[in-house]
Amino acid sequence: MAKIATRYLEIDPWRIIEKGFHPERNQVSESIFSLANEFMGVRGFLEEGFSGKSLQGIYYNGIYEWGEEERASYKGIIGRTHYLVNGLNWLKTRIFIDGKTLDIGQEKIRDFERVLDLRSGTLTRSLTLINDFGEISFTFIRFLSMRHCNRGYQRVIIASDYPAEMEISFGLDFDTKHWGRPGRWQAEFGAGGISVLGRTESTGQFLAAAAEIQSSLPYEIYKTEKEIGARYRFKLQGETVFDRKVSIFADRQGEKREELLLAAEADLQKSPGFSEALVAAKAYWEDFWQRTDVEIEGDPENQQGIRFCIYHLQQTYHGFDPGNNIGAKGLTGEAYSGHAFWDTETYCLPFYLFNNLSAARDLLIFRYRTLPEARKRARELDCEGACYPIATLNGHEACSLWQHASLQLQPSTGVAYGIYHYYRVSKDNEFLKDYGFEMLVEISRFLLSRGQWNREGKFGYYCVMGPDEFQMMVHHNSYTNYLAKRTFLFTLEVRDLLKDNDKYEQIIEKLGIGEDFFRKIKTAAAQMLLLYDPETELFEQHLGYFELPHIDIGSIPVTDFPLYNNWSYDRIYRNDMIKQPDVLMFLFLFASDFPLSVKKANYEFYEPRCIHESSLSPSVHSILAAEIGKKDEALAFFEFATRLDLDDYNRNAEEGLHLTSIAAAWMNIVYGFGGLRSDGACLSLAPQIPAIWKRYAFKINYRGKNIRVEVTKDEVKLSSDDEKPATLLLYGKEIILRDEYRAELRK
Amino acid sequence: MAKIATRYLEIDPWRIIEKGFHPERNQVSESIFSLANEFMGVRGFLEEGFSGKSLQGIYYNGIYEWGEEERASYKGIIGRTHYLVNGLNWLKTRIFIDGKTLDIGQEKIRDFERVLDLRSGTLTRSLTLINDFGEISFTFIRFLSMRHCNRGYQRVIIASDYPAEMEISFGLDFDTKHWGRPGRWQAEFGAGGISVLGRTESTGQFLAAAAEIQSSLPYEIYKTEKEIGARYRFKLQGETVFDRKVSIFADRQGEKREELLLAAEADLQKSPGFSEALVAAKAYWEDFWQRTDVEIEGDPENQQGIRFCIYHLQQTYHGFDPGNNIGAKGLTGEAYSGHAFWDTETYCLPFYLFNNLSAARDLLIFRYRTLPEARKRARELDCEGACYPIATLNGHEACSLWQHASLQLQPSTGVAYGIYHYYRVSKDNEFLKDYGFEMLVEISRFLLSRGQWNREGKFGYYCVMGPDEFQMMVHHNSYTNYLAKRTFLFTLEVRDLLKDNDKYEQIIEKLGIGEDFFRKIKTAAAQMLLLYDPETELFEQHLGYFELPHIDIGSIPVTDFPLYNNWSYDRIYRNDMIKQPDVLMFLFLFASDFPLSVKKANYEFYEPRCIHESSLSPSVHSILAAEIGKKDEALAFFEFATRLDLDDYNRNAEEGLHLTSIAAAWMNIVYGFGGLRSDGACLSLAPQIPAIWKRYAFKINYRGKNIRVEVTKDEVKLSSDDEKPATLLLYGKEIILRDEYRAELRK
Repeated sequence: MAKIATRYLEIDPWRIIEKGFHPERNQVSESIFSLANEFMGVRGFLEEGFSGKSLQGIYYNGIYEWGEEERASYKGIIGRTHYLVNGLNWLKTRIFIDGKTLDIGQEKIRDFERVLDLRSGTLTRSLTLINDFGEISFTFIRFLSMRHCNRGYQRVIIASDYPAEMEISFGLDFDTKHWGRPGRWQAEFGAGGISVLGRTESTGQFLAAAAEIQSSLPYEIYKTEKEIGARYRFKLQGETVFDRKVSIFADRQGEKREELLLAAEADLQKSPGFSEALVAAKAYWEDFWQRTDVEIEGDPENQQGIRFCIYHLQQTYHGFDPGNNIGAKGLTGEAYSGHAFWDTETYCLPFYLFNNLSAARDLLIFRYRTLPEARKRARELDCEGACYPIATLNGHEACSLWQHASLQLQPSTGVAYGIYHYYRVSKDNEFLKDYGFEMLVEISRFLLSRGQWNREGKFGYYCVMGPDEFQMMVHHNSYTNYLAKRTFLFTLEVRDLLKDNDKYEQIIEKLGIGEDFFRKIKTAAAQMLLLYDPETELFEQHLGYFELPHIDIGSIPVTDFPLYNNWSYDRIYRNDMIKQPDVLMFLFLFASDFPLSVKKANYEFYEPRCIHESSLSPSVHSILAAEIGKKDEALAFFEFATRLDLDDYNRNAEEGLHLTSIAAAWMNIVYGFGGLRSDGACLSLAPQIPAIWKRYAFKINYRGKNIRVEVTKDEVKLSSDDEKPATLLLYGKEIILRDEYRAELRK
Repeated sequence: MAKIATRYLEIDPWRIIEKGFHPERNQVSESIFSLANEFMGVRGFLEEGFSGKSLQGIYYNGIYEWGEEERASYKGIIGRTHYLVNGLNWLKTRIFIDGKTLDIGQEKIRDFERVLDLRSGTLTRSLTLINDFGEISFTFIRFLSMRHCNRGYQRVIIASDYPAEMEISFGLDFDTKHWGRPGRWQAEFGAGGISVLGRTESTGQFLAAAAEIQSSLPYEIYKTEKEIGARYRFKLQGETVFDRKVSIFADRQGEKREELLLAAEADLQKSPGFSEALVAAKAYWEDFWQRTDVEIEGDPENQQGIRFCIYHLQQTYHGFDPGNNIGAKGLTGEAYSGHAFWDTETYCLPFYLFNNLSAARDLLIFRYRTLPEARKRARELDCEGACYPIATLNGHEACSLWQHASLQLQPSTGVAYGIYHYYRVSKDNEFLKDYGFEMLVEISRFLLSRGQWNREGKFGYYCVMGPDEFQMMVHHNSYTNYLAKRTFLFTLEVRDLLKDNDKYEQIIEKLGIGEDFFRKIKTAAAQMLLLYDPETELFEQHLGYFELPHIDIGSIPVTDFPLYNNWSYDRIYRNDMIKQPDVLMFLFLFASDFPLSVKKANYEFYEPRCIHESSLSPSVHSILAAEIGKKDEALAFFEFATRLDLDDYNRNAEEGLHLTSIAAAWMNIVYGFGGLRSDGACLSLAPQIPAIWKRYAFKINYRGKNIRVEVTKDEVKLSSDDEKPATLLLYGKEIILRDEYRAELRK
């Protein structure tokens, strides 16, 4: 893991601070200082414009374009991808001072500071411009409403120590670039005021926005082809303040062209102004941290890091709309095209399971809503049931690399796992009845039709790519086979649970399956080939993996990483090197299924073969290392979990934040050091504390009960704000928690 | 093999005849009636234009365009392909009768006939137009010079039985389409006469043409953006004749813009007219058939078929320019983009080895000339030495499917095999010294660096695709390992042969190799892993192949073929079905290495698993079936070898002819029924005769001696036109052939 921190931001428990402008790192800062509220995401760009390196991006969840239709190659290979599109720039501001554009890439400035306050969700940027006549200071503040996600706010404070000729414009601009290429928006303006309706080219979706600028100064409305705004010209000595509020509505179906602009204008009328909305924003985040904070004493870097992670997770997704999912880069950039991956169910879901159960449920509802596309995809692959996409915004497969889209079954088994995990934590039978069972049956159907029987009567999967993408087209990948087995078994479990329910027959009939189907998946589960050797306790990653030529990954020069960029594509696959946990991944997901000795044996075998080329890899290794008592390794793998983006370990934070890694960082603390396991019948904890920490604490909500877990050098303290009893396992021993429970820390 | 003949052409020993116009099959006829002379290829299109289905194509060997540069995906995956481009239409003719365009798709006609005469290389098309005023008959004749490949000829004879108002134009037109899209040619006209210079857009190559029309009628020169020509307006009652001759010069390097047009004009001046050139053409083909004919008595379909194949092979390639190779579709269409594959060395070379040794040598020189590109390609794949491309016109890899371009090593081992085969037949030491050894060393270097050692100290190849493209990314493919072993051994053989030669040290020094290298390849050859079981005598196609789920290929519905179009791409790879010979392929190529029992065992195992989705597959099966005594199967597989395109078995002859299958058809007769084997130290023959044939005969030239092999029901007769003794094996017994040798046919 040749990853090196590039730190230029200040350490602070509640704030992210850039002191002094770092133009060469501006695009990294834009990602880190992103704001979002699930409806939209705004990179921390300089709204007044900047001639240096910048990705000026504002993204709206679910607003996307189709890519070019490609000449069909083979059946099952998608011909057209889709991507989250850079949308309306409602923060656009242009400032001219004595006729000269403000561009801090070109000017002399001092006291630049960019601050993201995690307790209020505000981004504040201040700087002072020095010119021949005097000094002018600027403060730009922005935030998004978390309760009214269609609202955004901006404040610009300008103070001059000499009489400056000022011109400032506040625009709503659809002329935004995507991947540096001209955008595809069509725009038309509202009848009065500052409002605009934009239409995506290929999907015909609408985005409407209305804006109001509060200022006592006179202004004029201006329009260009895709921009409308207000322009102020005035002489300034002393201070003036502009407050902008905007209301933005999206119509993903492209059916509400007429009403949409009116809705935005009406919302604008009734929305509070900047100051009042800021009070509400602070209250929102205070309440959130009250329920969700992770405290770490004795490690300021990770204290800041973990709050940064939690903050971004929450603002990217919190259950605002079950039509949303969590993109690999959230709403912070264009890499991965805004697509959600199977990371959602395996890495992100736990955070919501223990902090916002209805949001967790909504993530699964997203998959239910996209069942039609998953069914279609299964047909394209000559299979039955439903095959979930590797990458998607809208339910359609968006991954044009067939080796991933056709060979990776983990999106489908991941959805089944998500339902399983959600049910273990929530005991939500209604969900199973209304959504879960149907998805499980359809996924099981897919898995049944995609699987094959070998000559010894064992079932399993040929030509698959497991989570380890460095072994491309293999047979009987243990992860795939194990997950399929567990999917079949859970489908049968849910069927037993529901079969006396009124709705059961309806679902069965709707899906057109009979007893026969359940018999088949029972047999397939029972006969699933698992390459497990009881003697060594090792799972072989796939058939023949143990016979692959061995490569000592320590011998690979640091400059060869990332291998995808530096090694011939086929070379990556010709040895026993792995990219990310595969066997270890299912030992983690189904932790309750395996004794410690199996985890230990497999960890010791596979970890030295893993190069962690996925940002999701170290956290899972850290969690397992903690469990099997490898404390130093656990800490070493944790090292950059919380600060992956803050310290730009992967050198690509400029493209956007690693949102799903951010979720893994939370898991790393709660599952790793906290020893939380939630895949069994009852929640279990086994806390330990890293040597360098004095104390840490986290909060979870488990079946309606708020539980705070506080760990010091000697003690574990569980506490709750109510008396309702909850049964947990602590270090494997069943306890009943009411308001407080203390135990010695097991070392 | 769900292949059904679609016959609409007449059977004739020396001519291909379409009687009556078949508009729905016009595009198939265009392919079948193609003319070529290696320099250029002209589809048999209606030069006067046709509103129905047509691919009006004229291609010039080595004149190509680069495709779009694609966004780089991964290292070693090519970002830009290249393709043979549709070029100057020098046959363009437009005819207006009483103001109305002649378009036989729209008119009433009778007595349509299209005839390709294989003894003169002429295409003659005649038809009579019936209109309200009377009848007008047309005859169009065209041919290409085989000795002066830059020359083409056209004759148009028109006869009217009423005074018709005629307008006829003869153009040189660069405004030609490619894949139905507008072409990319730029054109400029010569100073006087009818001449034009065209330039390809991305490669900057030049093509210059000058034309002269012989007619006593007055004309005017016309020009459009990319076309120049002569137009005649006249009243016709009775007959008139127009003869056109053209001279066309190509400049592939794009360096001779100035001289090129002058060269074409000068050549035109000195070239003979239509009638004189036609006499020469007939003489050329008479001489050719004298040396190369295959006679079959008792089977008129195959008699016609085999001559059609030989004719097309000869006109596509005969050693005119060592910068040329043989595209999978020759010069007859746009499918496969004009690319040559490893078919050249494995399927086409034998025809030339025994008919035109210097052309065979030139095919290998093509690979020598493209060593720099092959070296570059090896670097792209993180390997040493030279890696030859899967598909190419210019030496660069043109295959954008990484799974083929990165995983198939058979183009490289194919070149080594070609050198081996050429040397076995020719004993051309000079060639080895000047070209062969250098290629062998570079290929061996590539193979050494691409191979890996397993844990038992055996050498071989991981992540490869053998000839059977239905097993994509496998380890220790037997074909690959065996060919690599033989490549290493032959490299060592040639090194021993040359090492006392003056030039040896030069080559060694130039290549920067030492003794060490030869030791390494010797070890690798000795330790090559061959998955051979002496008990069953089976080679396992690759590691784990025997454990793949079995599919009964007879159970696949006929409508599922071709599978590439009807099966999900990944589904094709998940069983033991094979597309084309793989183990059987190396048993055929190195026939002398293996006893009959091994061939029999493997044939019986693999043939039932093969669906022959490659047009090259049946011939190899037929040849092996003949050898192991399965006469009925040999005949069944031969069934459509010679008439694959004539009867459009694959339903895609409209895209162009299967040139390399055409070569396989020749092998099918000579190697299959003739029992020729040429990979051993000395040539061997073991003729048999298909039950339905009365007699057949073929001619080969072996080490300068012309040998005619005639086989009747009872006897094999070998004869020669000279007394020079040649040692051969006949039915495994050494014989010395002087002028004649007779033996009983072994049954």
